[in-house]
This record gives sequence, structure tokens and C-alpha cells, in this order.
Amino acid sequence: MDKKKIAGDKAAEFVKDGMIVGLGTGSTAYHVVNAVGEMVKNGLKIKAVPTSKATEEQARALGIPLLTIDEVDYIDIDIDGVDEIDPQFNAIKGGGGALYREKVVADISKEVIWIMDESKLVDAIGTFPLAVEIAQYGYKQTMQKMTDFGLKPVLRIRDEKPYITDNGNFIADLQLGAGFDIADVAKKLTGMVGVLEHGLFLNTCKKIVVGTDNGAIIKENPAK
Amino acid sequence: MDKKKIAGDKAAEFVKDGMIVGLGTGSTAYHVVNAVGEMVKNGLKIKAVPTSKATEEQARALGIPLLTIDEVDYIDIDIDGVDEIDPQFNAIKGGGGALYREKVVADISKEVIWIMDESKLVDAIGTFPLAVEIAQYGYKQTMQKMTDFGLKPVLRIRDEKPYITDNGNFIADLQLGAGFDIADVAKKLTGMVGVLEHGLFLNTCKKIVVGTDNGAIIKENPAK
Repeated sequence: MDKKKIAGDKAAEFVKDGMIVGLGTGSTAYHVVNAVGEMVKNGLKIKAVPTSKATEEQARALGIPLLTIDEVDYIDIDIDGVDEIDPQFNAIKGGGGALYREKVVADISKEVIWIMDESKLVDAIGTFPLAVEIAQYGYKQTMQKMTDFGLKPVLRIRDEKPYITDNGNFIADLQLGAGFDIADVAKKLTGMVGVLEHGLFLNTCKKIVVGTDNGAIIKENPAK
Repeated sequence: MDKKKIAGDKAAEFVKDGMIVGLGTGSTAYHVVNAVGEMVKNGLKIKAVPTSKATEEQARALGIPLLTIDEVDYIDIDIDGVDEIDPQFNAIKGGGGALYREKVVADISKEVIWIMDESKLVDAIGTFPLAVEIAQYGYKQTMQKMTDFGLKPVLRIRDEKPYITDNGNFIADLQLGAGFDIADVAKKLTGMVGVLEHGLFLNTCKKIVVGTDNGAIIKENPAK
């Protein structure tokens, strides 16, 4: 069975009647959206906030009642995928381009659960490129500054054009390599003109659900 | 004579042949754009980068040769207005809604000159609202966080709808009051999810040109 589906199905068990649920984006989150859709068909009463237009379409097709981000003050539980996560629960997210909306939703969630297959568990994050959402205006200057800081940005291209996020911005993918100085890079990106948000999610999740050949493994983050 | 025009005309004298010039936005910058346009008509050879669509239109109508932000690596001189400036050259900009583009241009400029009438000189900034450019998605959460921090945000409204910047974002105007803790507010806004940029321009300008009834006064920033 698909390990991503194992993780998604298991994480969906944490969704209970009456909750406002954040629905993540990407190939693993896809499965939890499906699982929640099935539960809704079977009578579960929840409302969900999607983290991307893609997830919104998937959820709507499944009949999951939706709320916009503007209609909620908080979210009870947010279930999303990650690109890489280290033993300290520092993660890189944003491969799917939805990092900003994912961060907004995570930021107002009482509990964040990340789902994944085993390949996402790494000793040190950075092999997977770190996505950074940057304004279109001045993007060359922003990328030059990243280059000057040694952050090795590559503008994300799709269909031979710059990829445009749901928010109308570009994505720079930083080729940092495993073992980069997480706090230092986060600080540089946070203070940089032109950056809306970066894909470093540090100590954000309460637990992770990992799909394996032997079923789902749940690990709690002791720091949350 | 209009004090804003006195300042704009004087500042235009710092523009020389061969320069790449940043052109600001607002009712004072309007005059420097006019003055530069006049100089171009009289033979001055420069190229200019506008900080807003409004300034771009004005400059184009005057026949000033334009470059986009993507076509330059640096700017020689940037002339722009301010909303308020204190004796330490800390300024609030953004009343015109162009703070992000103004900051990008200032950020890559070798020299920044601010022009104003005397009313912009204050002992402590903060009476003028501090504009913050925020993403549309999650803006209510962003504003709630600002409120939680005591920053008193008000969503900017125009024609009964949220004002939308040239970058497709909203503006929150913070009613801070004179004497707020500049470093603390800058730090809070810089690290806040949903904020693209704020209108605090700290120790950015090389000099200011102030229009008065007795002509233009130039003050140099000793820290630049």
C-alpha cells in the first residue's frame, strides 16, 4: 500500500466532529483530504480551510464543507505534508509552492500534524531546496542579495515561465545542502526586502505520522 | 511658491548626466519628476526607475527614458518624499501606498535623497500612520496579530473597498502615535507572517532637502 496513503489515513483519525480542519497541499496531503472526504460522506461534521487552490478544488469535489481563511479565528487541527524533517522537528515545506498559505494556516492552528513517508525523515534538512516566496517586483535584486549571502537561489520555472504562486508572487528555490545553519538562514530571509515568507517551519508540528511498510508510526514532538 | 516644489526643484539639481535615477511617489516627489522631465527636455541624459505605476505614467508623459527594476543592478540616486522624519533620520513612508517599491529602489541606490516641506520634520515619528503591506490571504489573522501586539492596525479602504497595492496586496495603517519604540516595532513587523514590508525607513537617506518660505534647506545625514 502507498506509504503516503497510510500516513494520510492514520492522520485523518485525529479529526473529530465539530473541528475546523486545515487541509494541506501536495502528494501526501492529497490522501488525508481524500480520507477526510470519506469521513464526511459517512457523517463527520467538520469544516475545513484549504491551503491552496488545488486543495480547495479537491475538497470541494469531495463535498467537504469549506471556510475561507477570513472566516476563521483559529483552526483546531492542521494536517499537511513536509519535504524534509530533522530529528528536532525542523522542516522544509514549499515544494508544492503553497508554503505561504500553509504557514498562515499552521500559524493559527492549535495542533499541527505532518504526514509523510519515511523518505522525508533526514538527519539534517537542506538537500531538498528551500522554497522562498518573493514579490515579482524587484525579484532580481532579491535573488542577487540571496546569492551575495551564499544562499544559491534558483528561480522556479514552470512551462518555461516563472512559476506564480496563488498569491501572485515568484518562488526562489535555495540550494543550501544538508547541514546549513538553520537559524542564520531564517534570520537572513526574514529580514530581506522582497521576501514574503520562506519554507522553514521550525518546531511547528505537535506530531508526525510516518507511513511505513509496517503501517503508520506516530512521533510526538516533545518541545510542543 | 509651493514648498514641495521648492524641495523638488532643488533636489533635481543633484541629478547628473549618465545617472540611473530612482523616482519617488507622492505629492512631493511629483515635483521632482516634473523638474527632471524639464531637464531631460533641455538635454539631460539619464534613465529613470519609477517607484509606482503612477510615477511611471507621469515620467513617461514627460518623455523621461525609463528602465524597469529588472533592468538595473543599482541606482545612482533616488529622490523620494517622506511622510515624517525625525532628527535621527528615521522616517515613515507609505502614505501613498508605494512603500514596497520605494524600499526596493532605496535598497539598491547609492544615494537616497528625501524631499519635503517643513511639516514633515518631527521630533518623533508615529503621528502619521505607519503603512504595512500585507498579503491578502490571511490578512485578518495578520491584523489580529498586530492588534495583539498593540500596533492598532486599520485596513486601508479606498472607494469602500480594501486598497490594493501595485503588488496586489493590502495595506494596514498602524496608529502608533509619536514616540513608539521604533526598533521593537520594526522587529515585530519584520518577523510577522503575512507582512511583505513596512514603511519604516531607518537611517536610509544621505540627505534631506526641505522646502521653506526662504528656499530649500539641505541637511546631511552624518551616519551615512
